[in-house]
Amino acid sequence: MEIAAGPLLSTIEYPSDLRKLSKDDLQQVCNELRQFIIDTVSVNGGHFGASLGVVELTVALHYVFNTPDDQLIWDVGHQAYGHKILTGRRKQFHTNRKYNGISGFPKRSESPYDAFGVGHSSTSISAALGMSIASQLNGQSKRQHIAVIGDGAMTAGLPFEALQHAGSSGANILIILNDNNMSIDPNVGSLKEYLTDITTSKTYNKVRNDIWNMIGRLPGGKFHQKMASKVEAGIKGVVSKTSNLFEALGLRYFGQVDGHNILKLVETLRDLSQIPGPKLLHISTVKGKGYDLAEKDQTLWHAPGTFDKVTGKINKVVFEHPQPPKYQDVFGKTMIELAKLNPKVMGITPAMPSGCSLKYMMAEMPDRAFDVGICEQHAVTLSAGLATQGMKVFCNIYSSFMQRAYDMVIHDVAIQKLPVIFCLDRAGLVGDDGPTHHGAYDIAYMRCIPNMVIAAPMNEKELRDMMFTAQSDENELPFVIRYPRGEGVMPQWQTPLEMMEIGVGECVQQGEEIAILSIGHPGNFVIEACKSFADEGFQPAHYNMRFVKPLDEQIMHEVGRKFKKVITIEDGTVVGGFGSACLEFFAANNYHPEVRILGIPDRIVEHGKPQELHRECGYDMQAVMETVAQMRAMTFA
Amino acid sequence: MEIAAGPLLSTIEYPSDLRKLSKDDLQQVCNELRQFIIDTVSVNGGHFGASLGVVELTVALHYVFNTPDDQLIWDVGHQAYGHKILTGRRKQFHTNRKYNGISGFPKRSESPYDAFGVGHSSTSISAALGMSIASQLNGQSKRQHIAVIGDGAMTAGLPFEALQHAGSSGANILIILNDNNMSIDPNVGSLKEYLTDITTSKTYNKVRNDIWNMIGRLPGGKFHQKMASKVEAGIKGVVSKTSNLFEALGLRYFGQVDGHNILKLVETLRDLSQIPGPKLLHISTVKGKGYDLAEKDQTLWHAPGTFDKVTGKINKVVFEHPQPPKYQDVFGKTMIELAKLNPKVMGITPAMPSGCSLKYMMAEMPDRAFDVGICEQHAVTLSAGLATQGMKVFCNIYSSFMQRAYDMVIHDVAIQKLPVIFCLDRAGLVGDDGPTHHGAYDIAYMRCIPNMVIAAPMNEKELRDMMFTAQSDENELPFVIRYPRGEGVMPQWQTPLEMMEIGVGECVQQGEEIAILSIGHPGNFVIEACKSFADEGFQPAHYNMRFVKPLDEQIMHEVGRKFKKVITIEDGTVVGGFGSACLEFFAANNYHPEVRILGIPDRIVEHGKPQELHRECGYDMQAVMETVAQMRAMTFA
Repeated sequence: MEIAAGPLLSTIEYPSDLRKLSKDDLQQVCNELRQFIIDTVSVNGGHFGASLGVVELTVALHYVFNTPDDQLIWDVGHQAYGHKILTGRRKQFHTNRKYNGISGFPKRSESPYDAFGVGHSSTSISAALGMSIASQLNGQSKRQHIAVIGDGAMTAGLPFEALQHAGSSGANILIILNDNNMSIDPNVGSLKEYLTDITTSKTYNKVRNDIWNMIGRLPGGKFHQKMASKVEAGIKGVVSKTSNLFEALGLRYFGQVDGHNILKLVETLRDLSQIPGPKLLHISTVKGKGYDLAEKDQTLWHAPGTFDKVTGKINKVVFEHPQPPKYQDVFGKTMIELAKLNPKVMGITPAMPSGCSLKYMMAEMPDRAFDVGICEQHAVTLSAGLATQGMKVFCNIYSSFMQRAYDMVIHDVAIQKLPVIFCLDRAGLVGDDGPTHHGAYDIAYMRCIPNMVIAAPMNEKELRDMMFTAQSDENELPFVIRYPRGEGVMPQWQTPLEMMEIGVGECVQQGEEIAILSIGHPGNFVIEACKSFADEGFQPAHYNMRFVKPLDEQIMHEVGRKFKKVITIEDGTVVGGFGSACLEFFAANNYHPEVRILGIPDRIVEHGKPQELHRECGYDMQAVMETVAQMRAMTFA
Repeated sequence: MEIAAGPLLSTIEYPSDLRKLSKDDLQQVCNELRQFIIDTVSVNGGHFGASLGVVELTVALHYVFNTPDDQLIWDVGHQAYGHKILTGRRKQFHTNRKYNGISGFPKRSESPYDAFGVGHSSTSISAALGMSIASQLNGQSKRQHIAVIGDGAMTAGLPFEALQHAGSSGANILIILNDNNMSIDPNVGSLKEYLTDITTSKTYNKVRNDIWNMIGRLPGGKFHQKMASKVEAGIKGVVSKTSNLFEALGLRYFGQVDGHNILKLVETLRDLSQIPGPKLLHISTVKGKGYDLAEKDQTLWHAPGTFDKVTGKINKVVFEHPQPPKYQDVFGKTMIELAKLNPKVMGITPAMPSGCSLKYMMAEMPDRAFDVGICEQHAVTLSAGLATQGMKVFCNIYSSFMQRAYDMVIHDVAIQKLPVIFCLDRAGLVGDDGPTHHGAYDIAYMRCIPNMVIAAPMNEKELRDMMFTAQSDENELPFVIRYPRGEGVMPQWQTPLEMMEIGVGECVQQGEEIAILSIGHPGNFVIEACKSFADEGFQPAHYNMRFVKPLDEQIMHEVGRKFKKVITIEDGTVVGGFGSACLEFFAANNYHPEVRILGIPDRIVEHGKPQELHRECGYDMQAVMETVAQMRAMTFA
């Protein structure tokens, strides 16, 4: 449903329309834009607090800079709703994050205003620097390149690498540090403390900025480059230029500016656009700004779903019967059980304590479970260090974010055979967040690493038992447990913890003609399909393999000997994944069944509801039924 | 050949022996240790400059700390020769980096003194922090955890992540920043400039350290914790504590200390061992210290091979006939040719300009080719940013280091279909450096990503033509070119640049009964084997596939139709690699040949000469011959 926009916002299709307005109208634009976001997200869902926090910044940037020729990169991108609305997509905005609708993140193929596709955090400075260097080489030195990055995203390693390059390059780039003390959960780590510190301490920057503000306020006082140099030279004698972390890395630091003062932002950005070279503007904003409840509980209102915008009541579906829990909660609650049983058990999450539900253990045992910030690389190598001392570390990282720490898994964990447990949350197609967040590749990229155990539960009990097994002394290897976002299948999930045999699957049902080998949650699709087959009087065999690595060789030999037709199903890529593991086994053992591999196809899958995407990709119940029908109809030479 | 040690060094088997000596003997131990390293490396080869630079630090650390109970983590680890010699491995040191000999890097399975296995840079702080946190939880709060990290390794993102956690954790950890202005090549980036800066500027730390030194020198003046706090409090009023980058991140900073003054180091380390919490000691050393030539040309002497220790003449094998060049040099020279043809061509390397030979282009076109430091993540996302502006970027990263930027390949390049060219140097088994450096996994971890083109040249001409093709406008996709370290096969390699058809291989020879599908350099092993078969009157077919992705479907159909026996060969893992790609094709198209997959097995392969390792792993010429013989002898049901 298209949402009505306010009178001024209705006149703005593109930033060029915005730039025709007088400065005095901008506050009104901000108000209408904020209202439009509230109106839309409350009925459509999506990310909420982040975009509200940057309404003024968004308006100021498009007002001052000549987008899309000047290039604007939104780090992470879930704060870019205002940007989308002002850049030609207001009328499509009600399709945000919907199947075949616009993406919840900036996306190059969607608009020339989306200079760089995002989703994962912390890429914006590197990307903007690349663009700036290229513009220079291409003779377009007047183009501006602006990266907007949060203080949470700034904690990752990548921006530090990029800052060093930017600071020594002389490239013309403006980094806007949007400081709200939050990522999805509250930020952690010493950088956060530092940023708080420099806003209150009487450092070089404070002194300099006071002078800078003073000059800026003189009648007709444009802040010219020459004057900037003079001011800088004047205070260099007083305090070393190394007295600010960003200055230490070679960037000119400006701040801190109130990110909700639209006129001040416009003025500041105008001034900064005249100053060449690498520079950082530190602004302070409030996540959820303008919607009281969102300001007060920023984690809850990061992406609240739909809600009543007047009362602030978040809509929840009410069920008559008990529903299965989320895998996430099973993980979180089971962590506490295991930690009580085994004093060596620890939990680590890189900035996803709410998302992965480690928050429960963090609250109860803060010395044994912690959030290390958006630092996947550190999370893994830290876990390796802990494991050398006998700790049983559950390092919980979303499948697609684990890509950030791939070398650490190989170099620090697998080569050393350290029994770190990786819980890969959000494995498979995640839904609304789309391609950047799909956990499509982990089976393939983990399977090729020696020494790894790779497991995927078909239900809550299996998740619990895999966790129990992984932390036991019987497991001496790195142990991956991958599971999807969302609901499992067992309303009564509090089963007793039982050891599993590593590398042993189960025969769910014996059958004839066709063997279906499933891994993880899609096994449930097979079970459903088998119920339908039973109605037709046909019964294929179904094996729930539980482990991608090591494969259950006994089952595989049984299947190889007994079946000429095999279907494999997984919620991962069909290239190099579980199906390929089965092919490798069959080839190595001289079995020659026909094999159909169901899973995520070898292309970028867009966003949509998981069910819609499973259908599109051909690995839901219906796909199992169709594939069985096709294979039964086949005759072979 | 075992090398004789000096009189004092001969008495030291373990650090406990060292600790029995008087402080006054330590300089002599250093001299003998340095000489022992020179004597051994000059005849055996290996890393050279790095270990010479930390002789005094190594002796001081083992003298002051109670290793192995106190835990010492050497970042990267190619500077740990002195450490190995002092910790029970002097008599095995002549087997360093040799097949079945000791590893050139610290390795947990080799010695309890090797607290953490290394090889890639920048992991030490995370690992030490993990150990420290675990020791605390395990009730061993007296244990010390020390990370030794170079200023080059400090430029990566991972240490920045770790510093933030360390600085906010209060964990007891000592980080020694070994500052020599070098990694393998001279360091780059603003952190380097900063480190130079703080050694000369009159900052807070300078003031504080002056006072600290003064107190330390008082008669009987042990530097006690209480006094340290007093001093700190005293100057806090004068200068903000945020005036040093490391202090800004919550660590106490001490430095800079002369890393070649053994007595000063011992004294400083003793003092620091009494100060709890996270702290950083900044020492300055000279890479190659004590060997004049190595001090003067530090890049050349990083790992010079064998040499005459008296004259400093590096031994080079002299050939009568012209030899094939290294793939690296072909890459480096071809880059200049391409850059002259196409103004959009650029080159990026993360800290390997000499190793990958981008140095030639960097010297000739410094604005279009540069080193971004040990920042693989930034290198890839920067390349993506450049590519959005139409640049044709060759991002050259060693295969095993590319693991560091895996998410950036997926998230910033592949999802956006940006035609960045990844040249994966050191693909396959690299030899002496061993498991951390083997480029074993890239085919598998790249192949599962949509939109990728993955190519591997069989010779110099193919490398050149692949590079030419990748930068042409006919290629619109991310393009991986992987090739091994070392020599190719074409002494006359300066062939004209020709376009290749993407996804098209070649039939090297038609044949009967068995088809051999090769990818990349191992195709040469097949050609050799085929010569032997010809002598026996048998001729298998040989296809040089050139592309792992997309596979040449025409060839694959031909093979599927005509052959019942297929051998695939690659210098990559057999799990999910090229062989698996062939299996996937055959399964999808209902072909059922017997397939044997030759390549790197699914286990950690240790170090040795490439030829030794190819033999061990079963993918050299002999392995091809054996596999052909086995398959010819097979009969099938």
